[in-house]
Amino acid sequence: MSTQLNMAVVGAGRIGMVHARNLAHRVRGCRLVAVSTGNPQRVAAARAEFGDDIAIYPDLATLLADAHLDAVVIASSTAAHRANIEACAAAGLHIFCEKPLALSLEDCDAAIAATAAAGVKLMVGHVRQFDAGYRAAKQRITAGEIGAPIVFRAIAGDQDPPPPEFADPNVSGGLILDAGYHDLYLARWLMDSEIVRVYAEGGALVDPAIGAVGDVDNAVIDFRFANGALGTLLVSRTTRYGHDVRVEIIGSEGAVHVGHLRRTPINLLTRDGLCHDVIPDSSVRYAAAFEAQLQAFVDCVLHDTEPPVTGADSRAVVAIGVAATQTLHNRRPQPVVS
Amino acid sequence: MSTQLNMAVVGAGRIGMVHARNLAHRVRGCRLVAVSTGNPQRVAAARAEFGDDIAIYPDLATLLADAHLDAVVIASSTAAHRANIEACAAAGLHIFCEKPLALSLEDCDAAIAATAAAGVKLMVGHVRQFDAGYRAAKQRITAGEIGAPIVFRAIAGDQDPPPPEFADPNVSGGLILDAGYHDLYLARWLMDSEIVRVYAEGGALVDPAIGAVGDVDNAVIDFRFANGALGTLLVSRTTRYGHDVRVEIIGSEGAVHVGHLRRTPINLLTRDGLCHDVIPDSSVRYAAAFEAQLQAFVDCVLHDTEPPVTGADSRAVVAIGVAATQTLHNRRPQPVVS
Amino acid sequence: MSTQLNMAVVGAGRIGMVHARNLAHRVRGCRLVAVSTGNPQRVAAARAEFGDDIAIYPDLATLLADAHLDAVVIASSTAAHRANIEACAAAGLHIFCEKPLALSLEDCDAAIAATAAAGVKLMVGHVRQFDAGYRAAKQRITAGEIGAPIVFRAIAGDQDPPPPEFADPNVSGGLILDAGYHDLYLARWLMDSEIVRVYAEGGALVDPAIGAVGDVDNAVIDFRFANGALGTLLVSRTTRYGHDVRVEIIGSEGAVHVGHLRRTPINLLTRDGLCHDVIPDSSVRYAAAFEAQLQAFVDCVLHDTEPPVTGADSRAVVAIGVAATQTLHNRRPQPVVS
Amino acid sequence: MSTQLNMAVVGAGRIGMVHARNLAHRVRGCRLVAVSTGNPQRVAAARAEFGDDIAIYPDLATLLADAHLDAVVIASSTAAHRANIEACAAAGLHIFCEKPLALSLEDCDAAIAATAAAGVKLMVGHVRQFDAGYRAAKQRITAGEIGAPIVFRAIAGDQDPPPPEFADPNVSGGLILDAGYHDLYLARWLMDSEIVRVYAEGGALVDPAIGAVGDVDNAVIDFRFANGALGTLLVSRTTRYGHDVRVEIIGSEGAVHVGHLRRTPINLLTRDGLCHDVIPDSSVRYAAAFEAQLQAFVDCVLHDTEPPVTGADSRAVVAIGVAATQTLHNRRPQPVVS
Repeated sequence: MSTQLNMAVVGAGRIGMVHARNLAHRVRGCRLVAVSTGNPQRVAAARAEFGDDIAIYPDLATLLADAHLDAVVIASSTAAHRANIEACAAAGLHIFCEKPLALSLEDCDAAIAATAAAGVKLMVGHVRQFDAGYRAAKQRITAGEIGAPIVFRAIAGDQDPPPPEFADPNVSGGLILDAGYHDLYLARWLMDSEIVRVYAEGGALVDPAIGAVGDVDNAVIDFRFANGALGTLLVSRTTRYGHDVRVEIIGSEGAVHVGHLRRTPINLLTRDGLCHDVIPDSSVRYAAAFEAQLQAFVDCVLHDTEPPVTGADSRAVVAIGVAATQTLHNRRPQPVVS
Repeated sequence: MSTQLNMAVVGAGRIGMVHARNLAHRVRGCRLVAVSTGNPQRVAAARAEFGDDIAIYPDLATLLADAHLDAVVIASSTAAHRANIEACAAAGLHIFCEKPLALSLEDCDAAIAATAAAGVKLMVGHVRQFDAGYRAAKQRITAGEIGAPIVFRAIAGDQDPPPPEFADPNVSGGLILDAGYHDLYLARWLMDSEIVRVYAEGGALVDPAIGAVGDVDNAVIDFRFANGALGTLLVSRTTRYGHDVRVEIIGSEGAVHVGHLRRTPINLLTRDGLCHDVIPDSSVRYAAAFEAQLQAFVDCVLHDTEPPVTGADSRAVVAIGVAATQTLHNRRPQPVVS
Repeated sequence: MSTQLNMAVVGAGRIGMVHARNLAHRVRGCRLVAVSTGNPQRVAAARAEFGDDIAIYPDLATLLADAHLDAVVIASSTAAHRANIEACAAAGLHIFCEKPLALSLEDCDAAIAATAAAGVKLMVGHVRQFDAGYRAAKQRITAGEIGAPIVFRAIAGDQDPPPPEFADPNVSGGLILDAGYHDLYLARWLMDSEIVRVYAEGGALVDPAIGAVGDVDNAVIDFRFANGALGTLLVSRTTRYGHDVRVEIIGSEGAVHVGHLRRTPINLLTRDGLCHDVIPDSSVRYAAAFEAQLQAFVDCVLHDTEPPVTGADSRAVVAIGVAATQTLHNRRPQPVVS
Repeated sequence: MSTQLNMAVVGAGRIGMVHARNLAHRVRGCRLVAVSTGNPQRVAAARAEFGDDIAIYPDLATLLADAHLDAVVIASSTAAHRANIEACAAAGLHIFCEKPLALSLEDCDAAIAATAAAGVKLMVGHVRQFDAGYRAAKQRITAGEIGAPIVFRAIAGDQDPPPPEFADPNVSGGLILDAGYHDLYLARWLMDSEIVRVYAEGGALVDPAIGAVGDVDNAVIDFRFANGALGTLLVSRTTRYGHDVRVEIIGSEGAVHVGHLRRTPINLLTRDGLCHDVIPDSSVRYAAAFEAQLQAFVDCVLHDTEPPVTGADSRAVVAIGVAATQTLHNRRPQPVVS
């Protein structure tokens, strides 16, 4: 392998384009050579942005058949992750796959097995682990500055729901798995203990279209960690004021809060009071972290080290999300079986 | 009745003295004439503070037999509320009783019945309803500024647990009823809907002495409102950094946050960063509201109007707290029966 | 003298009524017995608020002739301070006088001399010294937490100018003396050094009516302390968004910021961003401090101790304000002669 | 000219390396081909970072003689700017020069004339104009949201002074020109009016080494704009707690504040209170803006448009800084002659 990985992005939606841009212009040790998407508008957008520097393929099979690749970023719909991973692994490519790894534990296991069998690396997206804020929080907790962590308390809010076709739980995995994934992951990481029991209440409270496809747009989740610690999470698709992502870890001697609501450091003061803006979405909030995440993937391929976020890590979060989603329907606290 | 109510405070603990001070010096239309407490240290403290201006009785019976009163503030232990209310009502006195009204629905009902039979007013403590912050939040919600309220999210944290003898659930009602009461009350008030189902997870995570008396020191509670809205509350006796009380109401069009963590508007900036203090306890946080609350009680007695916080209001919160506490043990979401 | 001072308030404008309310209901060791005001509307307002509990006199002479007083609060126009102080001192009354003591050093000297000759106490208003925030700042500086103080940086902003008749520099002393007084006082107190040179630039930038009476509505002031430290102050009558009073003291090892812009701990979040209110005026910001200030005066009279803010203190600030005001016109840095 | 500019950086100090990194990895339409520095440590550092991808020259003359360049970034000491600009202009290269353009108006004029004569573009560094915060502030002011701007109030604080050899006013231009430059520039830009009179007080209050080389480490500056508006600026080399850069523009109807003190969105809460970090230096604060600034330069070369920050812009700021520095010594408000 050369010291410049040839890479492609599978899927050219919003997040796929974020990855493509980072590979093309920011991440060192790699080169964006191709994108695959069957959507004509996305083909046009990718062409407009990247010109003739890259190839654009209509599907993964053509991409794999034609491009000379070392690694791929899979940013297709979650439902397609397993098949895409299996195909890329069979082609001997290292894989960065967007979260969640899959919608079921069975698919997670198959994807993990495929990469293990092929001897390729599998890293799963968890952008917040590469954010300076969460890293600083982790560091302070590990350094004992808050004593023993006893409660994880978080909100994960998006300004607006995705269109119903993407919010369909068959596509997204449902609200908790789709939009709560990162916080459930953080919960395990920051509390350094596994979640063993969950209970959720949810409803399609704002957007009837979400209810119509069988999902909820807001949910509150209580959980218990293996070490006895407690967790509480609000997942919302309808925090109209912006991308509201805040985490608090309360310990026996103090607490760490991670929050960042504003986009610019501007306050406007008038007779109506003081107003400032709010971060609108995660790509703004985590721009630097998205870049650092892909750099970490490229580095672990180049230096043959363990990916910082593994398939097993993602599978553990899928297990929690699946269990929590079940409680929405059966109204019983659910053990997390992993 | 004169235009100056003669009033006494039953119980001279921390909160009883707050009320006594307000009656003596701040609230108009009343006069503090007596305090009852059997605790010699508290007798001494009350005498030191109020001199000979007031009488101090060893118990409620002696107080009722001797003092010429129009109304009382009951600040005894919650377990004694029912008996105290019954005695005061029988003596024809109007009653302000600290929250919660009682530890069981049966005792609540008896207390309410006693005041109704005697034709005296009964107001129950809910100091936050008299705080400018919560009133402003209520106003903005009522004015429709956040659309329809869909989620109530709160934290109620105390810096340190009370001594085990007060934290004993037979005395306090348990963590949720004792320390979560105000937020459960606020939840109903701000969301304008009743809580119909609750589920809690809790543990004695920090203070083994709390566990030894059969209570938990931290709990997370999920709840559902009659109108479908959702709630999540963290109640903690161990937020070491201060009295951490924050409420967020998320609506279909926006949100209102109520929070006030700092005591003084001072920031200290050094090479270690920026630091500021945190409100240490509720008597500091709600000093003005405690005064306004008693003023509201005196006014409703003087003008013969309905108390702003009734026995029935408090009973409804006790019902939620009792149900939530049960779920700690039986691990099943519980309907709230009122 | 009894242990309850009989007190009167001279002048029943906004600030006079604040003092009257505190004397009547909050401050211990005193009793409000009278108010003097020649303004019929204010007579009516005082009568409506205090009923027959107090006497209301049309002028100071009648008050002095008739009421049995131990002490007075002078809240008349600044231009009348000297004459009022001389009359009250001659009557043997202890005096709390609103700031500034007078508009000229000559009048300050006469007022101080009159009280010294009569052997009565003279305390001058400086409400911020009784605010928990500034006290905490002073404490931290004194404790060496920021090293040696090297720069004082402040803003003193009022939402709206007073009516031109009050803003007339013959009445108010001009913008700097009237509205910058407290910050100039704080500068000396917090930096623990005297101001020895000043330079100001100002203009009637917003309100032509202020210019018409010969004053400015905004000014920036640079100053130098005796120990070499630096100061910068913006005084504004037109911070439309509220009462914007913030002070920063930068030391050789860190800094202390004192600021408090918001009234309630409420954030409203909508698609337009996050908004909160701003403190509208100083009587809201310093409600507790106004009470503590008068308590300090009553206590120093009852216990015969030195007032915490003396006539000499106020005279020193008047000297700075007068010099700074001169620089507005002659455009030359001015030494402060005291 | 190709669509990829060949570029070099003159000077490889801290800021030179920031520019070099951006040219090498982030800015589109250009390629970093060389760096010049005579400092052996910097040669080694540049080699370590950029490997053999670039050439490293011991001085500008060799660079110009050998490299095939379209444009340069001049990040040498300010004292060398004029000579460097003259040499690069003579070589037909477009020039991005760090601020300030020069230390005297004479040198500014010569530098501007040289680029005009050579027909090359000259852009001067003013990174804050490319920061989302200041751009948003400018936009809101231009949109009339605060009425007419009447006061500019700012602080420009650096955590620690540079070594005395760099702080020497013959090298740096002195505190005001060196460290206050950006705020004086912003003042003109945000207030949309020229500064016509200045007065400053300053001292070597913390670092005797700064005094020993004839400069001050802290200064307060009052200024007046052509339209009558007012300004006040604190420039400090010793804000120990971090890079403290905040700007407030007060208008006739409201205000805009730009401030950003924290690095991460982390709050640590313990019994000592709430603490968070502070931005340590401008390269952290303005990382994105440094990149956007160079992109703007490359774009204006590629598309032959006017640079957004011209030599004349920088000259105007130098005129203010020179005048303000004079007032430190002669203690007289100074007109700004441009």
